[in-house]
Amino acid sequence: MADLRIALAQIDTCVGAIDQNTAAILEWTRRAAGEGADLVAFPEMTLTGYPIEDLALRASFRRAAWDAAADVAVQLEREGLGHVTVVLGTVGTSETALPRGAGATEREVSGSPADLPTNRAVAIQHGKVVASYDKHHLPNYGVFDEFRIFAPGTEPLVLEIAGRSVGIVICEDIWQDGGPITTLGGLDEAGHGIDLLLVLNGSPYEEGKGHVRTDLAARRAREVDAPVAYVNMVGGQDDLVFDGGSFVVGPDGAVLTSAPQFVEDLLVWDLPERTSAPTGAGATTTSYPAGRLAPPLHPDEEVYRACVTGLAGYVRKNGFRSIVLGLSGGIDSALSATIAADAIGGQNVVGVSMPSTYSSDHSKDDAADLAKRLGADYRVQPIAPMVDAFQGELALEGVAEENLQARVRGVVLMAISNREGHLVIAPGNKSELAVGYATIYDAGSIGGYAPLKDVDKSRVWALARWRNNAALDAGELPPIPESSITKPPSAELRPGQTDQDSLPPYDLLDEVLDAYIEHAEGRAELLARGFDPEVVDKVVTLVDRAEWKRRQYPLGPKVTSLAFGRDRRLPVTSRWREPVE
Amino acid sequence: MADLRIALAQIDTCVGAIDQNTAAILEWTRRAAGEGADLVAFPEMTLTGYPIEDLALRASFRRAAWDAAADVAVQLEREGLGHVTVVLGTVGTSETALPRGAGATEREVSGSPADLPTNRAVAIQHGKVVASYDKHHLPNYGVFDEFRIFAPGTEPLVLEIAGRSVGIVICEDIWQDGGPITTLGGLDEAGHGIDLLLVLNGSPYEEGKGHVRTDLAARRAREVDAPVAYVNMVGGQDDLVFDGGSFVVGPDGAVLTSAPQFVEDLLVWDLPERTSAPTGAGATTTSYPAGRLAPPLHPDEEVYRACVTGLAGYVRKNGFRSIVLGLSGGIDSALSATIAADAIGGQNVVGVSMPSTYSSDHSKDDAADLAKRLGADYRVQPIAPMVDAFQGELALEGVAEENLQARVRGVVLMAISNREGHLVIAPGNKSELAVGYATIYDAGSIGGYAPLKDVDKSRVWALARWRNNAALDAGELPPIPESSITKPPSAELRPGQTDQDSLPPYDLLDEVLDAYIEHAEGRAELLARGFDPEVVDKVVTLVDRAEWKRRQYPLGPKVTSLAFGRDRRLPVTSRWREPVE
Repeated sequence: MADLRIALAQIDTCVGAIDQNTAAILEWTRRAAGEGADLVAFPEMTLTGYPIEDLALRASFRRAAWDAAADVAVQLEREGLGHVTVVLGTVGTSETALPRGAGATEREVSGSPADLPTNRAVAIQHGKVVASYDKHHLPNYGVFDEFRIFAPGTEPLVLEIAGRSVGIVICEDIWQDGGPITTLGGLDEAGHGIDLLLVLNGSPYEEGKGHVRTDLAARRAREVDAPVAYVNMVGGQDDLVFDGGSFVVGPDGAVLTSAPQFVEDLLVWDLPERTSAPTGAGATTTSYPAGRLAPPLHPDEEVYRACVTGLAGYVRKNGFRSIVLGLSGGIDSALSATIAADAIGGQNVVGVSMPSTYSSDHSKDDAADLAKRLGADYRVQPIAPMVDAFQGELALEGVAEENLQARVRGVVLMAISNREGHLVIAPGNKSELAVGYATIYDAGSIGGYAPLKDVDKSRVWALARWRNNAALDAGELPPIPESSITKPPSAELRPGQTDQDSLPPYDLLDEVLDAYIEHAEGRAELLARGFDPEVVDKVVTLVDRAEWKRRQYPLGPKVTSLAFGRDRRLPVTSRWREPVE
Repeated sequence: MADLRIALAQIDTCVGAIDQNTAAILEWTRRAAGEGADLVAFPEMTLTGYPIEDLALRASFRRAAWDAAADVAVQLEREGLGHVTVVLGTVGTSETALPRGAGATEREVSGSPADLPTNRAVAIQHGKVVASYDKHHLPNYGVFDEFRIFAPGTEPLVLEIAGRSVGIVICEDIWQDGGPITTLGGLDEAGHGIDLLLVLNGSPYEEGKGHVRTDLAARRAREVDAPVAYVNMVGGQDDLVFDGGSFVVGPDGAVLTSAPQFVEDLLVWDLPERTSAPTGAGATTTSYPAGRLAPPLHPDEEVYRACVTGLAGYVRKNGFRSIVLGLSGGIDSALSATIAADAIGGQNVVGVSMPSTYSSDHSKDDAADLAKRLGADYRVQPIAPMVDAFQGELALEGVAEENLQARVRGVVLMAISNREGHLVIAPGNKSELAVGYATIYDAGSIGGYAPLKDVDKSRVWALARWRNNAALDAGELPPIPESSITKPPSAELRPGQTDQDSLPPYDLLDEVLDAYIEHAEGRAELLARGFDPEVVDKVVTLVDRAEWKRRQYPLGPKVTSLAFGRDRRLPVTSRWREPVE
């Protein structure tokens, strides 16, 4: 028996773009066939994009996805590629499932359809869809809402390809004990197990998740006593970033081959004939070949490239070609502009300096310097005439006056966007959003995408330094002016203002924020960690007040960005405050 | 055996406000005891408020709720009310449940805790929490996300009170077949069934849902062969409105007593001794007393009062005392202002007329007239000086110029809000939001609450007419100037503009929108209903483009309001469009 050549097609799809996703599947299958692949595997929900949320509930969408899968099969056969087995993800419709719980009354009142969609993998051979598998475990936590939308599958799928038994599952199915993995780990009547476990994934990027995935796959490979081939999608989709990093692990737990993160890739690997003990009960004695291995990225590079991937996907998939943002001379807008330039090219970035009477000369110089280094379109638009016109009518003072300046900048950016078609991005970082150190509807919080929303201030500086050093290593000019990195951060909305007038030092603040927000620790737990009670109470109070203020204005700053962590979903009118002294 | 006096306490709680909710529970229990009640029942999640979303995942919050339940018990005993049985809703912690699926790995990566909260009812007697019940069926569709957060309960609860067996379940438990209802419908070893089924509810208002609830409860009453007492919460909570309407139905399906909608109420009813056939297998022969019945509301009154209740709750629970909005002289802002005046009093409403060069005289007159009728604070703030200042710098044309005027109005309202502390509300209606006939960040879409977000334009006119007629019936001056109702709608952003330059007539538009959005019908289904193909393609194209544009700017108009229907959850970058000719 010859080796079975497997190609993991780590591609970037777009939600709802069925025609475009279909074309990508055909193109990558041709490429894989050109490399002699017998089996080409695509990520979770390839045809439809992922995650599709309520789009799954629209029957006309499900019909279109079904037609597209049939079209892929016919087209491949027509091109003489019918012998290649293609496994791809799409949306199905549950033939058997009633709505969960048979009493559909409340569901009907709520307008949900009675037939439920499924998260499906289909196998295509010789011009036809020959098999399908519906995902069993539907994640329903963190960024996932699948149990809300899909009916779970109940049957396992083992595909026979050129004499090999290939078990097929989808993403969460390997994260949960029980279910299809247990079935697939068994032996058939002739005493044979599966030869390969193929996992289709839409696994979003989180920092350090790569090792968690390979460790888990290694455990499943041991359980089914066969290699696990893990194919993941790549690219930015709304508030998620998918990092690819597809791989194959052997049943001994060794990573045999792996694809790089954050780029489309075709990872080709040969599954050898299986030579197991004749009883079939013993461990395999097959020797599995090793292929290319992608070197791991430095943590700062990994996060930086996640930011770039997320923004690039958002711009392209929303049909934009250019970005506009305010450049204050500070580190947040400097890093955001650099990420934008790396995502779509500096010549497609418009940086607008909008000085007020409180803006320092060095801020304006730094903004101009940055734009020049990036090759961005740089403009100066003073806001004094507009602020003066408002003040002539309204005579605002204090915070209301500070907010006015910030919002006039927001109106300027939206006007430029309306006139010229750029996407407005919001440079606000996670630390300042968490403590409410921002103005609702200002230039830091309006727009379509906030690239630093999930990056705390300490990390903002680290990413800026990493990016500059990477440029130096490549013999290029560092993009970010050194003084934007080293100067004390300031909103420059009143004379002499700095962030530390109102906030603890950022390194300390970020540590407390991580414990309080990401790990949901209460005051007692925070004190037990040894944080200063005064700092804890200050941060807890700021966060609770900021969340509440932000939720009072939900028509405003709902920020969409990377999901390194996860958004808290809190009721707007919640009056819960962590008790402080 | 004496009658058992039951009091259904239909109260308005606030999410997270544990102290305030505790005080309300004590107060209403005292009142019920004053009326001789043996059993006082409160709505779902009384102590914590409902829905609490991710607040449930915070351990310090769950501890606080637990302490509060114990405090209620001690306090009632101290006041000599220990003999009264109190059943209330709160959050619990599952003692047995592992995270769904034992392999907690992905959950741990996502930062979710290993111990899961439950949606719990507790019974209090003689100074102690004597029993608890965890909701079995966790709804996970429409506006509900409970399966995401809570672990399901597995045990039924039957409470013995003065010789009666009272089964206790929570909301969705009666909407689903199977589960606790089946158990409670059985007979005990002595051949006795339960004497009463008590249901704690947080059932959000939807138009016409009252009959669905009573029909369902009647079915369950027949199944358990005992009366069903249904207690529902009341009040606005974020984007939901709870309408109360608590009731008792007998096992023959008759509604025996009912509470009014949209107000707090104590519904007292006496459960008589049960007289059944001695075998215990036959139907009950007990005769159940009838109490007061709340008359049903006219459909327009019901929707109008839902709007008022939602806004009033939002204002109060967010700590505001006043509202500011732009008054254009048009019907949307007129109705919004009237709802605001009915919610918090006309003297707490600030209406700002912000005329531009395109505003007609009759518009300004209608705005002034409305404010006067409402007793609102009326101000005129021309926007020409600010628009001129922007135009002197930016020289915008076409839609960019129209949007600029609209956004300057938004900045004015936010400035007034900052200075004086009013909540900004957005008068945009459902029809114009659906087709994108609005400016992002304008005075119709910024702010904290959009009272007409779920009310289509046809209904806006109907509610205005209903409100004016209600005033006439009461011998009062109708609040809305007749010309605001009768004149052709216009955005007045360029000379002679009317809505029907861009949109089909609203009665037709609203019919197509309902089918396309609320019922998720595709083009084929819309044509099969007999709609003109040209209109269908126009509306479908407008909606898909508007959704996409709006989703491109998610930092902007995320509208929070009533959930008559439900928000569609769609990925921002979705490229799916319903195919049109």
